Amino acid sequence: MKKINFENKYSKFSNHWSPRIIAEMNDYQFKIAKIQGEFVWHNHKDTDETFIVLDGEMKMKMRSETIIIKSGEMFVVPKGVEHKPCADNECKILVIEPRGVINTGDKINELTIEQEQWI
Amino acid sequence: MKKINFENKYSKFSNHWSPRIIAEMNDYQFKIAKIQGEFVWHNHKDTDETFIVLDGEMKMKMRSETIIIKSGEMFVVPKGVEHKPCADNECKILVIEPRGVINTGDKINELTIEQEQWI
Repeated sequence: MKKINFENKYSKFSNHWSPRIIAEMNDYQFKIAKIQGEFVWHNHKDTDETFIVLDGEMKMKMRSETIIIKSGEMFVVPKGVEHKPCADNECKILVIEPRGVINTGDKINELTIEQEQWI
Repeated sequence: MKKINFENKYSKFSNHWSPRIIAEMNDYQFKIAKIQGEFVWHNHKDTDETFIVLDGEMKMKMRSETIIIKSGEMFVVPKGVEHKPCADNECKILVIEPRGVINTGDKINELTIEQEQWI
């Protein structure tokens, strides 16, 4: 039973697109990530996925529209919806999703992380 | 598919201890609340409960210890653990838990909210 300080956790890594698990609630996980540039189009067919921006600004590209999410804002990508997270400058995000979700969803490529690490 | 701005949502109500639902992810809900003073001792026997402090500082009293959670920090209360949220000054929090959780857990009293409202 320990509290988690986001800045403290962010200070422990620098890689982009490399989510780190910081907490679990039931069978859900909280992950922080630093993102910059463009991720890959993908979807999660079995689950919604929540993004909270803690610092900076990201774009959530979807086929129908692009949503700009800034610090102090959140967005839930509905299950099955193709999306592509992007950020012009480094952006710090908190992702919430069920344990076991693959970061690149239905697309397995060099950005896929087999086993996300706790930090 | 809309993004949610926390400050915008907080501007729409002022009651303390009155969580408002702002988003859903699968069968989980995101709720914001303004808290000040002392809540009631209670527990949720079937679920963990996540608190993220967005502004200010709160104390999570538990029988074994008290955790101070500040802006930029989060804490997961494990299921079954008795807890009593408190805040000396107004504090803005984001709570994440399964849909249908009663705010006062096993304690039904004047703080119990039968049907939490979307905002």
